[in-house]
Amino acid sequence: MMKLSMLVPFCALALAVGLPAARADAPAGTSSVTSPRPAPTMQQVLDASKPSDWRPLDPANTLYMDLPKGRVVIELAPAYAPLHDDNIRTLAHEHYWDGTAILRVQDDFVTQWGDPQAEADHPTHVKPLGAAKKTVPAEFERDIDASLPFTALPDGDVYAPQVGFSDGFPVARDPQSNRTWLTHCYGMVGAGRDNAPDSGPGTELYVVIGQAPRQLDRNIALVGRVVQGMELLSALPRGTGPLGFYEKASQRTPILRVRLASDLPAAQRMKLEVLRTDTPTFDALIESRRNRSDAWYLHKAGKIDLCNVPLPVRVTPSAGGKRK
Amino acid sequence: MMKLSMLVPFCALALAVGLPAARADAPAGTSSVTSPRPAPTMQQVLDASKPSDWRPLDPANTLYMDLPKGRVVIELAPAYAPLHDDNIRTLAHEHYWDGTAILRVQDDFVTQWGDPQAEADHPTHVKPLGAAKKTVPAEFERDIDASLPFTALPDGDVYAPQVGFSDGFPVARDPQSNRTWLTHCYGMVGAGRDNAPDSGPGTELYVVIGQAPRQLDRNIALVGRVVQGMELLSALPRGTGPLGFYEKASQRTPILRVRLASDLPAAQRMKLEVLRTDTPTFDALIESRRNRSDAWYLHKAGKIDLCNVPLPVRVTPSAGGKRK
Repeated sequence: MMKLSMLVPFCALALAVGLPAARADAPAGTSSVTSPRPAPTMQQVLDASKPSDWRPLDPANTLYMDLPKGRVVIELAPAYAPLHDDNIRTLAHEHYWDGTAILRVQDDFVTQWGDPQAEADHPTHVKPLGAAKKTVPAEFERDIDASLPFTALPDGDVYAPQVGFSDGFPVARDPQSNRTWLTHCYGMVGAGRDNAPDSGPGTELYVVIGQAPRQLDRNIALVGRVVQGMELLSALPRGTGPLGFYEKASQRTPILRVRLASDLPAAQRMKLEVLRTDTPTFDALIESRRNRSDAWYLHKAGKIDLCNVPLPVRVTPSAGGKRK
Repeated sequence: MMKLSMLVPFCALALAVGLPAARADAPAGTSSVTSPRPAPTMQQVLDASKPSDWRPLDPANTLYMDLPKGRVVIELAPAYAPLHDDNIRTLAHEHYWDGTAILRVQDDFVTQWGDPQAEADHPTHVKPLGAAKKTVPAEFERDIDASLPFTALPDGDVYAPQVGFSDGFPVARDPQSNRTWLTHCYGMVGAGRDNAPDSGPGTELYVVIGQAPRQLDRNIALVGRVVQGMELLSALPRGTGPLGFYEKASQRTPILRVRLASDLPAAQRMKLEVLRTDTPTFDALIESRRNRSDAWYLHKAGKIDLCNVPLPVRVTPSAGGKRK
């Protein structure tokens, strides 16, 4: 198995470590064949992390979406979309999504879910919203605030003056206008809307499943990201109707239930934590991905795109237990 | 159906057209609410294209890979990987891939196929290669040449000094070193290799199914791209073994056959053509994607990433027939 795996481009979690191969025409400064200490790989960075480098998911910001094949875990981002996330919490309290379905999977774009009945009578919501709001003001960007953490990436961005990470989420910034916004990277979750800016109250959600559609940035409210179970949304059959909608109800994947973790008894909450993005460990992770030290790499990129930085998630090591 | 589709981010082929909405804080120069003529959408650009804007696929550079659920069509890129593509043609002549399988699907990275038996005895190829070579010299980049077409994108790139399109493929360039290379965008196909640069003769191929893994650029031979049937490779269940390999043989998708179009009788060849990337029509398409004129967009990006530019493919309009 390992032998075959060598025949391939290395993945995010490849464990193989080795000295970079020599290469005569490697750009100056990127070959470390003469370096006494090769830079650590991402796995080595993670293995050396401290417990304080990790942050447990806040149950009040964590959604569990149960599909027939497993659970998708979504972390909300209330620092960037507080009103949407409030409404989404209410919708979860109301069990709004129970019995709804995945309606659309468009290749290299998004998977989207919501009330199938809305199809016939949009924009009136067919399924009762209970205490949730039918409209929510646009939260497509916000002011930069000193209280918002920001770890900048060093390599620029095609779309924005600055990009980096804020509390575990990919963000962009424009210092000139003092504005900041979440970005449409793989796995980010947003609230679909109609043409009216306030018409996406979170009833219909989508997740990015392909090349980052950054043209959507600042046009729609991103509300969080998938931290576990992404493959349950990305590997679904693509819809054959316009925009990737399924043409038959039988093609849709049913949503069994969506719950806010804090609505469940503590014993039923998953113990997950994410790597903090405001630590030297995260800086080292970024560097390990900008310049790969795996033996396979002949040319080190020396750069990284915002949406290529992995955001590690793990099961919380048991208290008092030994960690490898 | 249309009503629901309005509730979502617009897709590549959305047909709705409208005046951009007014927005007080839109960056200067991007709001066209006062413009007498809104810019055309991509669909309008395509509708206005001339027959000469399209290029038929060359049968000698076209592979058909037949899976149980349908056909994947791959266009080879011999201007960038001539030796690999020669070997791949030979492997197709030899029916090398018939009865092989999809071995690996790693979420947000690649789908990969080849000989399952190689797993046990790599790097010796288990299945006979016939007239094909076991090793092929590295073709990870090449000199820039005046004969290579190049349509530059205007918005820069995180990884390379210049990016754009060459004969329908996404490429990067470094004018200082006079080098150019194909880039790892969604749908690009490459030849997996071991650590030795010449160890990827094309027997094992992969396709990008997530955010462009541009760190692979200049490290491995890209040999072409999927022009049809991408959803047959991107929507497969993710493998649960290391690197996304399937853990059980029963999980693999069998490859029924792979044929070079020119090895088939003319009547059995598919009539497909791709939009040329060296035309004013393609320039207009890029502009339609940099600044969306659909009514849904409140903020126009004004930029586009290399891997976000669609490369349209269509069935060749029948000779003498009327086209819409």
